[in-house]
Amino acid sequence: MPTIAKAYVASSPTSGLEPGTVERRDPGDFDVLIAIKYTGICHSDIHAARGDWAGVQFPLVVGHEIAGVVTAVGRKVTRHVVGDRVGVGCFVDSCRECANCRQGEEQYCLQGSTSTYNSFGRDGLPTAGGYSTSIVVDENYVLNIPEGISLQAAAPLMCAGITMYSPLRHWRAGPRKRVAIIGMGGLGHIGVKIAVAMGAEVTVLSQTLKKQEDAFRLGAQQYYATSEPETFEYLKGRLDLIINTVSADIDVDAYLSLLALGGTMVLVGLPSKPLSQRAWSLIGMRRTLTGSKMGGIRQTQEMLEFCAAKGLGADVEVIPAHQINQAFERVLASDVRYRFVIDAATL
Amino acid sequence: MPTIAKAYVASSPTSGLEPGTVERRDPGDFDVLIAIKYTGICHSDIHAARGDWAGVQFPLVVGHEIAGVVTAVGRKVTRHVVGDRVGVGCFVDSCRECANCRQGEEQYCLQGSTSTYNSFGRDGLPTAGGYSTSIVVDENYVLNIPEGISLQAAAPLMCAGITMYSPLRHWRAGPRKRVAIIGMGGLGHIGVKIAVAMGAEVTVLSQTLKKQEDAFRLGAQQYYATSEPETFEYLKGRLDLIINTVSADIDVDAYLSLLALGGTMVLVGLPSKPLSQRAWSLIGMRRTLTGSKMGGIRQTQEMLEFCAAKGLGADVEVIPAHQINQAFERVLASDVRYRFVIDAATL
Repeated sequence: MPTIAKAYVASSPTSGLEPGTVERRDPGDFDVLIAIKYTGICHSDIHAARGDWAGVQFPLVVGHEIAGVVTAVGRKVTRHVVGDRVGVGCFVDSCRECANCRQGEEQYCLQGSTSTYNSFGRDGLPTAGGYSTSIVVDENYVLNIPEGISLQAAAPLMCAGITMYSPLRHWRAGPRKRVAIIGMGGLGHIGVKIAVAMGAEVTVLSQTLKKQEDAFRLGAQQYYATSEPETFEYLKGRLDLIINTVSADIDVDAYLSLLALGGTMVLVGLPSKPLSQRAWSLIGMRRTLTGSKMGGIRQTQEMLEFCAAKGLGADVEVIPAHQINQAFERVLASDVRYRFVIDAATL
Repeated sequence: MPTIAKAYVASSPTSGLEPGTVERRDPGDFDVLIAIKYTGICHSDIHAARGDWAGVQFPLVVGHEIAGVVTAVGRKVTRHVVGDRVGVGCFVDSCRECANCRQGEEQYCLQGSTSTYNSFGRDGLPTAGGYSTSIVVDENYVLNIPEGISLQAAAPLMCAGITMYSPLRHWRAGPRKRVAIIGMGGLGHIGVKIAVAMGAEVTVLSQTLKKQEDAFRLGAQQYYATSEPETFEYLKGRLDLIINTVSADIDVDAYLSLLALGGTMVLVGLPSKPLSQRAWSLIGMRRTLTGSKMGGIRQTQEMLEFCAAKGLGADVEVIPAHQINQAFERVLASDVRYRFVIDAATL
């Protein structure tokens, strides 16, 4: 029998989120039923709930930074047992057959992975996210959250954490690597922690100096305001890897000029307009402009173990459900340090 | 005593090239005097000779695809002896001290490498290129041309060859790697040969089908006309590495869409306008847009040995000096298969 779970629901792009319910399927043979404890508020949730993107289906339950506890498993489940502390991220299924799925890069599934919300599962039913008290997910898309990370600090790792970890790992952040993170928000602050834990020399590039103290506390060695033109003069050619977490339109040439020979700039935020840069900004120092989209299941698990081993989690502000709409406004105003997490007990 | 060498000289942007002379310094302790035998005509020569670029100094002798024979060496020269078959490429000096020079990437010298023409040497005198009967170059910037490549086929390797070899090597063209070359001109045709010799699966993307037969003769496995929209549908996600040799403005998103997960598009041609692409074209499949600028001295030597071992050289049309201006017109009309080479004996 399907479960009726409590949820905060957007019934239309303009309704805001209101208390309601969502139906969860009866766990199949390979499914895990999770009692959600905490769910992070990701910027994407706001875009989706407000219908900023084409093709959003209402009513909608958003949320893809989920941490909870397993309360039931299907009879063929081998990867999780009741009582496990688990997480669910941005996708809950994928084709499992394409070249990308086969190499553990399900986030790049050629058939399209099944998003945790605003998508359709293999059963043809719409998916619904983590602003809810429970969720049912195939065991292969459920992550184990190691002891040593609290569930509330782990929740944002499921999207923000892996979105930063994946490019930092892929482009080899580590000792003697000069890494800059553009933007110190939900993604950026975790990126700083992870890059520092990887042993890189970390610079934060933020519009103003407001978050400088926090950045140093998180282990960054340098912090520069991008509103100051001298920043671009001083840092010219002094970075190896830049991860851009902001989705505002930026002067790509200016940022590329900060890269030394062979340096890489990775986009993880999605600007609304196309990006533009001079060919010479790339050719002149063999610089690379690229992008990255979370990580696969295997790498997400690796990231969780890495964070647990290093004692890392997101800096969170836990809120009760009735503050979600207000929290959305505060996210849009960059007034959060650094991630809101909903206490599912208050839904 | 300085040598007066015969040369073809551009006295102004509109003069065309005319017979004249150029003074070559007396070889210093570390210099090599080279009797030039053949010099390739690179598209850049035309831009420079016509003053298309800012800062071109006239009178000007262009040419940076030089092959010849050593006729004298300075008393401290150890790398070359009289009689050696040698080549000179796009630069004749660099600072030798910066991080890039120290790792053998002199083409990215942070002080700026000294271009073979239209630059100033360390002696403060303007450099003059290979449309000439001799040249004096520091031994460290002179390459050995192995037996097994004729001097005329080797000349274009000094710019076109290394410009293709370097990115193919850097981004690991080889077996099971699906490589496309955009544009089958001077650079492209050598790129096809080198990529094939590296064991890659090679596709040529050219505006029309005109050069298809040649491409297959050079070892390409596929050839598609970019004027056909079906090309972009068919090749979607089927390439690992694209090298773009054309400097025309292109639809970057369309080409990026041809790359599989983690694929790379390398610019080696220099479009006049900035390039533009959607962030999603990069993020959605972790694709990379990058650029590359010839290779360092060590890699250029490696390229020459590779070409000799594989029996590769440029496909050339040798011309007498009095046809240089006409050859420029034919290059601009893409009417050459695939590189003009000036016979220095006719200067």
